[in-house]
Amino acid sequence: MLRVNHPLDSLNPEEIIKAAHTVRAHLAEDDVLFRVITLKEPAKKDMIVYLDREHQGDSDLVPPIRIARVQVVRLQSALSRFCELWVDLDHASVVKEEQLEGKHSYVDSNHMKAVEQACHADEQVQAEIRKLELPAGAQVCIEPWTYATDGMNDMSQRITMCWFYLRLTKNSDANYYAYPLDVCAEVSEDLKVANIYRLPSSPDEGIHHNSQPFDRRRVHSSEDSEYHPSLRPPPRTTTRPLHVVQPEGPSFKVDGNVVSWEKWHIRVGFNYREGLTLHDVRYDGRSLFYRLSLAEMFVPYGDPRSPYHRKAAFDLGNDGAGINANNLRLGCDCLGVIKYFDGWHNTNAGEPMKLPNAVCCHEQDDGILWKHTNFRTGNPVVTRSRVLVLQTIITVSNYEYIFAFHFGQDASVHYEVRATGIMSTCPVNIGDSVPYGINVAPGTMAPFHQHLFCLRIDPAIDGHANSLQIEESVPLPVDDAVVHNPYRIGYSTISQIVEKEGAFDLDFTTNKTFKLINEDKLNPTTGTPVGFKLVPHYSQTLLAHPDSYHARRSEFANHAVWLTRHDDEEIFPSGRHTMQSSGGDGIQSGIERRRALADDTSVRRQDVVLWHTFGSTHNPRIEDWPVMPCEKMTVGLKPVNFFNGNPGIDVAVSTQHVNQSVQTF
Amino acid sequence: MLRVNHPLDSLNPEEIIKAAHTVRAHLAEDDVLFRVITLKEPAKKDMIVYLDREHQGDSDLVPPIRIARVQVVRLQSALSRFCELWVDLDHASVVKEEQLEGKHSYVDSNHMKAVEQACHADEQVQAEIRKLELPAGAQVCIEPWTYATDGMNDMSQRITMCWFYLRLTKNSDANYYAYPLDVCAEVSEDLKVANIYRLPSSPDEGIHHNSQPFDRRRVHSSEDSEYHPSLRPPPRTTTRPLHVVQPEGPSFKVDGNVVSWEKWHIRVGFNYREGLTLHDVRYDGRSLFYRLSLAEMFVPYGDPRSPYHRKAAFDLGNDGAGINANNLRLGCDCLGVIKYFDGWHNTNAGEPMKLPNAVCCHEQDDGILWKHTNFRTGNPVVTRSRVLVLQTIITVSNYEYIFAFHFGQDASVHYEVRATGIMSTCPVNIGDSVPYGINVAPGTMAPFHQHLFCLRIDPAIDGHANSLQIEESVPLPVDDAVVHNPYRIGYSTISQIVEKEGAFDLDFTTNKTFKLINEDKLNPTTGTPVGFKLVPHYSQTLLAHPDSYHARRSEFANHAVWLTRHDDEEIFPSGRHTMQSSGGDGIQSGIERRRALADDTSVRRQDVVLWHTFGSTHNPRIEDWPVMPCEKMTVGLKPVNFFNGNPGIDVAVSTQHVNQSVQTF
Repeated sequence: MLRVNHPLDSLNPEEIIKAAHTVRAHLAEDDVLFRVITLKEPAKKDMIVYLDREHQGDSDLVPPIRIARVQVVRLQSALSRFCELWVDLDHASVVKEEQLEGKHSYVDSNHMKAVEQACHADEQVQAEIRKLELPAGAQVCIEPWTYATDGMNDMSQRITMCWFYLRLTKNSDANYYAYPLDVCAEVSEDLKVANIYRLPSSPDEGIHHNSQPFDRRRVHSSEDSEYHPSLRPPPRTTTRPLHVVQPEGPSFKVDGNVVSWEKWHIRVGFNYREGLTLHDVRYDGRSLFYRLSLAEMFVPYGDPRSPYHRKAAFDLGNDGAGINANNLRLGCDCLGVIKYFDGWHNTNAGEPMKLPNAVCCHEQDDGILWKHTNFRTGNPVVTRSRVLVLQTIITVSNYEYIFAFHFGQDASVHYEVRATGIMSTCPVNIGDSVPYGINVAPGTMAPFHQHLFCLRIDPAIDGHANSLQIEESVPLPVDDAVVHNPYRIGYSTISQIVEKEGAFDLDFTTNKTFKLINEDKLNPTTGTPVGFKLVPHYSQTLLAHPDSYHARRSEFANHAVWLTRHDDEEIFPSGRHTMQSSGGDGIQSGIERRRALADDTSVRRQDVVLWHTFGSTHNPRIEDWPVMPCEKMTVGLKPVNFFNGNPGIDVAVSTQHVNQSVQTF
Repeated sequence: MLRVNHPLDSLNPEEIIKAAHTVRAHLAEDDVLFRVITLKEPAKKDMIVYLDREHQGDSDLVPPIRIARVQVVRLQSALSRFCELWVDLDHASVVKEEQLEGKHSYVDSNHMKAVEQACHADEQVQAEIRKLELPAGAQVCIEPWTYATDGMNDMSQRITMCWFYLRLTKNSDANYYAYPLDVCAEVSEDLKVANIYRLPSSPDEGIHHNSQPFDRRRVHSSEDSEYHPSLRPPPRTTTRPLHVVQPEGPSFKVDGNVVSWEKWHIRVGFNYREGLTLHDVRYDGRSLFYRLSLAEMFVPYGDPRSPYHRKAAFDLGNDGAGINANNLRLGCDCLGVIKYFDGWHNTNAGEPMKLPNAVCCHEQDDGILWKHTNFRTGNPVVTRSRVLVLQTIITVSNYEYIFAFHFGQDASVHYEVRATGIMSTCPVNIGDSVPYGINVAPGTMAPFHQHLFCLRIDPAIDGHANSLQIEESVPLPVDDAVVHNPYRIGYSTISQIVEKEGAFDLDFTTNKTFKLINEDKLNPTTGTPVGFKLVPHYSQTLLAHPDSYHARRSEFANHAVWLTRHDDEEIFPSGRHTMQSSGGDGIQSGIERRRALADDTSVRRQDVVLWHTFGSTHNPRIEDWPVMPCEKMTVGLKPVNFFNGNPGIDVAVSTQHVNQSVQTF
């Protein structure tokens, strides 16, 4: 991020240094491990005033106090090891200190590396590996995973699950997920191997301590399981180059972290946990969204055999979409003219750490925007659709997610998720199969799992007093004394405005539509409130039982739509701390807590937040192996009687003079 | 189409001439009006043999007899006016003649023009127009529409509904749909104005004969309702050029009507009614689909007031996607290197008529195909997704549809529909509104309606004995004596193979998945049948009451998925003749008829056809006015354990050297 210091800009390197320095001075101890130093966004009530004045061109703006949110682990502290501090950067002082006893911070890659090393060094582990009688030239790869709570252990200690794989070749990019071993180890916070056992590898087997050697029949051709070009036959040569050329440069302008493009105004943010965030989204000067972000994602596995029930990843809450953002490469991750935004995080020592090219901004052609041919004159009028893409890609161990906001000239926003990467695998005995996974290679099973995302939509539909209207399309009654529907073909809509915080489900059979509206701003032509509708991604919600830890820990995953009152500290629908959480911190609990306290949970003409849960039930196909072609999921936000006509009506007509296509015969 | 004369090629001009000549000689009368001269595709059983031998490189192939399907109106015949003849083009003889008493052929644009003229010339119409006291310089536009059956009239006569509009300016491209008049006329087959009346223009008004003048308060700014650039302010100038440049040419090869691209083999067909059809679709030499086509679409309106219940268009069955195909313009309808296919139809006199550039073929970049970064080595591997697009665009009066098949390097097929154009409008009194439409301009109401499409999928999944498997993802039971699910997080799938022809509905809540499989071909690794799954477009089915003419006439619109036995003559799920049809000819009736006759309706390991009904309940937004930004709907077909791994694994890694992107700062 550029060092512009708008109140919504991420912390710059100097601020990260200053925050760390202030915390170290405050705690007056040396052994402080910095986990996260990130912006605490100013209170929304202050920012609303600030942004409105900013857009009015007020040159005399006083920014809110700049606050860093710092999470540290105090290695020497007797009181509590993990705490969060708020640092007033303007005054270099700690303004809040919160002890987070019983909570855990995000995955610490240094800790994970240490776990891996400790596991490798452990004599019992080494003995178990010897019993495997591995082929010559093979290496064991140990993959540490966060631990999904199951009620079996005291959760005050961090536990790491270590899964074992075999790398058969000496090439370091060999796909070791092709050779899951049936060894599993649990490693404690202080790097002790607490438990080592053999994994179930057949339909009805529990964990065991019988030590079978590695089944050599599993060794298979590299063509079946390798994705890295150095380990594969030469690629197909039939795909000829396709360049996106923008001879006059891009249509967007970037000023600091503000992207201006085709009447859109978008402020780009970036933080440790959510990665890419968007702020103060406006079209043609009118406010639409205060903030848009992926707020959480949950990947529970469906294999009921212990210890696989411990595979359930909160890829944001446990890992962080920001810290895991790819360094996007020119010419690889997108075409055309690309603007990159860097991210800044921190090392364990509190030094700034650059994440280069964490977000990219580029344009894409998107086919036809609108077309009409007057059949009387034969005159066609056609415009092409250009979209602006803001994209970030994350790698979480074996898997990748591509997150992209697409802005349209028709004032639509689409949020696209692509899931790719390598599936997590488990060992399976040759000849066996299980009903909650498929075999993708000899001895290698890819288990069923779900990817459940939560898009947080903080609306500002022509202001901040918004409501949620739920509309369904229903047949008019037939043979009714009052309603005129003699031909039985009439239909109309019924709608209700949501009064209280709550959860809602989708129903395409009634064309159930969720509209964020401003009841106080009526469209002059239609006479109805201005609004934006959610175009949901229809998908199955969480399959785990409501009583399970998965359900209690995720909460958001149980319903497709949630509506809450805005709360500056309620950003994460499974709670602030998901690592080894035991539930009760999520969006449902928040609603219930406010109800129980008789807080005002009315959501009509209020500052509300809409949350959309979507994803996929990913029962693997072998076509997802060894690396998965992108699975796309798209959520839309589209104006409904917000404007006074097609917002893209003024896009210039498409011509060959401008577009320079080539005909082939 | 090129004149290659493959058995699946459309008729070429010489064949059209020959067919007309043969029919004229056979009927031995002069006054024959040719409606359609189109290929009758050879019997599938013959084509299966032919195509298999063709792919084996058999040089001694004998094509099936070439048959033209000819529909004529015999203007002098006492027997029947409308009949269909099959012409053996190899022997210049009529091999079948079918009298189609009580049926009507497609919309005849010449007849529609004559209706329009007759209506203009009618004295009663002129008198009614005078009563409107229209503003100076205004012209009346009369828009003839097909008549949706309502049980009120004998359907042996063709009836045309004429809707009246005002064109306020002298520019012939002015959007007259902005000024619907409340005059309506019904015109008979022999061009007599049978009925003229004033339309309902308020919530509870019926048709009437009170003649109010045109309400001058309706006249509004051209900026609100014009789309043609000549009638609008200058367009935005912020969109800078974006070129798709393919320096080495396209990656596809075209030989006659066969497109070869990235392991795909696709044969392009084109006919009067369906427009673009695809045949003999193979990937890497393995057969996937015998035929893919849009088989029907139905657009019923939800306004219950008479005569609006008569607005219900079968845009294929009544109008024809082929005959209405746009002449695609280079640089307007697509970017990059474009190959066009022409279509051939016929004039009323039986002469060939060229539809130039009716189908286009081009490539698009589609973002990332797959990516993985090995977090241990930091090495990313990323490939870009290229898609091949086969596209056709139709204009049906006010509205346009963009139909495109997208082929992926991951062996997926996606069928994308974009709806654009101008909404059909009705008059509404100033100050009034109705619950089944919205007001888009003063006095102009856009009624609620549905767009319901039927994609016909004729599979050939590694052969022609296919089955449909329906799979749902369900939680494992908890507290069960047998099933091991102690943590309550396990899930599995239940599936059944469909045994009998029938209809099915979607259910995203159970991740209900429809797979076309070949039970006799097992995937060597997964051990399960090879298959392709339907990725449906979740949408509301028909809202009209099951007893209504709309439901009885459309049939396919009542359920999302249908499975039938293949029948060469069962291509159209609302029946062969939809014009003024009264029901009983569609897919449901066919199934019931076969059941009643105790025909074999088993569909397991059979030559089956899958039909997917999808669309949108289009309750207009003002953002759809005056011309609608594309509404996209996408249906997918994806391999499930068909291949032995990611079909796109061999796509070359993406590099800046090849892609030549540009960084901006």
